[in-house]
Amino acid sequence: MTEIERLDRQMQFILEIDKLKDIQRRNYLLNAKKRENSSEHSWHVAVMAMVLAEHSEQKLDLCRVISMLLIHDLVEIDAGDTYCYDQQAALDKSDRENAAAERLFSLLPQDQGRWIKNLWQEFEAGISPEARFANAVDRLMPLLHNYYTQGKSWLEHGISSDEVRARVASIQEWSETLWEYALKVIEKSESYGYLKTKQSKTG
Amino acid sequence: MTEIERLDRQMQFILEIDKLKDIQRRNYLLNAKKRENSSEHSWHVAVMAMVLAEHSEQKLDLCRVISMLLIHDLVEIDAGDTYCYDQQAALDKSDRENAAAERLFSLLPQDQGRWIKNLWQEFEAGISPEARFANAVDRLMPLLHNYYTQGKSWLEHGISSDEVRARVASIQEWSETLWEYALKVIEKSESYGYLKTKQSKTG
Repeated sequence: MTEIERLDRQMQFILEIDKLKDIQRRNYLLNAKKRENSSEHSWHVAVMAMVLAEHSEQKLDLCRVISMLLIHDLVEIDAGDTYCYDQQAALDKSDRENAAAERLFSLLPQDQGRWIKNLWQEFEAGISPEARFANAVDRLMPLLHNYYTQGKSWLEHGISSDEVRARVASIQEWSETLWEYALKVIEKSESYGYLKTKQSKTG
Repeated sequence: MTEIERLDRQMQFILEIDKLKDIQRRNYLLNAKKRENSSEHSWHVAVMAMVLAEHSEQKLDLCRVISMLLIHDLVEIDAGDTYCYDQQAALDKSDRENAAAERLFSLLPQDQGRWIKNLWQEFEAGISPEARFANAVDRLMPLLHNYYTQGKSWLEHGISSDEVRARVASIQEWSETLWEYALKVIEKSESYGYLKTKQSKTG
């Protein structure tokens, strides 16, 4: 493949991923005026990783973490954003996202497609310190967006504090400091009524 | 400063930069339905850099390029997006952006604020291969958005092919392949009437 042919495929990929800017997530921006899209989220967690990396208890290759976060949601272009608390949608999430990965990453020259696909699979599987850190940041961010919008998205979907606690539990493996921070946000959210408590859910 | 105090300042910064998602740029998304915001753009150019780095004629530290692109527009939170063809707005751009950098980056712990500020200044000054590459990618992307939306934003602002050619000229220093690609896009845009030619502007 010539340099020009490679460039042509790279440009097709670059154009295609513009669609991530149209994938709406459930949470709202901090101004509570509109829902966030997945490209905005990908940018924000990448910067968050740059700033919070020092709290990791394991040594990290920050460059790989950032690259992973930049591409971690690309599959949503075909598969849509699967809400992390939607148990029904979770059933076929993996099938939908694998098919998306197949189509999207094969737009690129083969070596680059494989590189991006491996990064994505590493993130999904959480099989390295970098992937675990990237997952932790990805799970921490929606806590901030929900807490500072008075639980707007949590309340719309009737989410309980136990569900959120389970969702962010993996942060503990990565950083005790961040884990304590997350627990505090959840506790305060419970006390302000931003999250259902187990009792109020069953009662 | 304790780890908790550092975390508190880092979180203030992470929350503050959510505002970049509300900074509208002039160009439209490829679907031509809405204008792009600066966080979407920052994400897109960072991924573009990952994919196009091989075309650089100089060896690059890709991690620094990506970090630079992720933070290069943060100053717009206070200073707004200054349209690159607006000569009037260019007069005080530097003052506005320096004041913004002062406020925003000082939210962070001092060492991190200095790190991000240096990255931003390096990008602005184009004083390293990484900064020149980051600038080239930043200038190439709007060409794609304009070309594939039939020159929507260029036509709204009466932009000429000479202006665009001058804007992207620095790409040549970084990659002959990309420079030829950019020239071809500009030529086709001229022939389709997406860009004013010099003649039609003065005629």
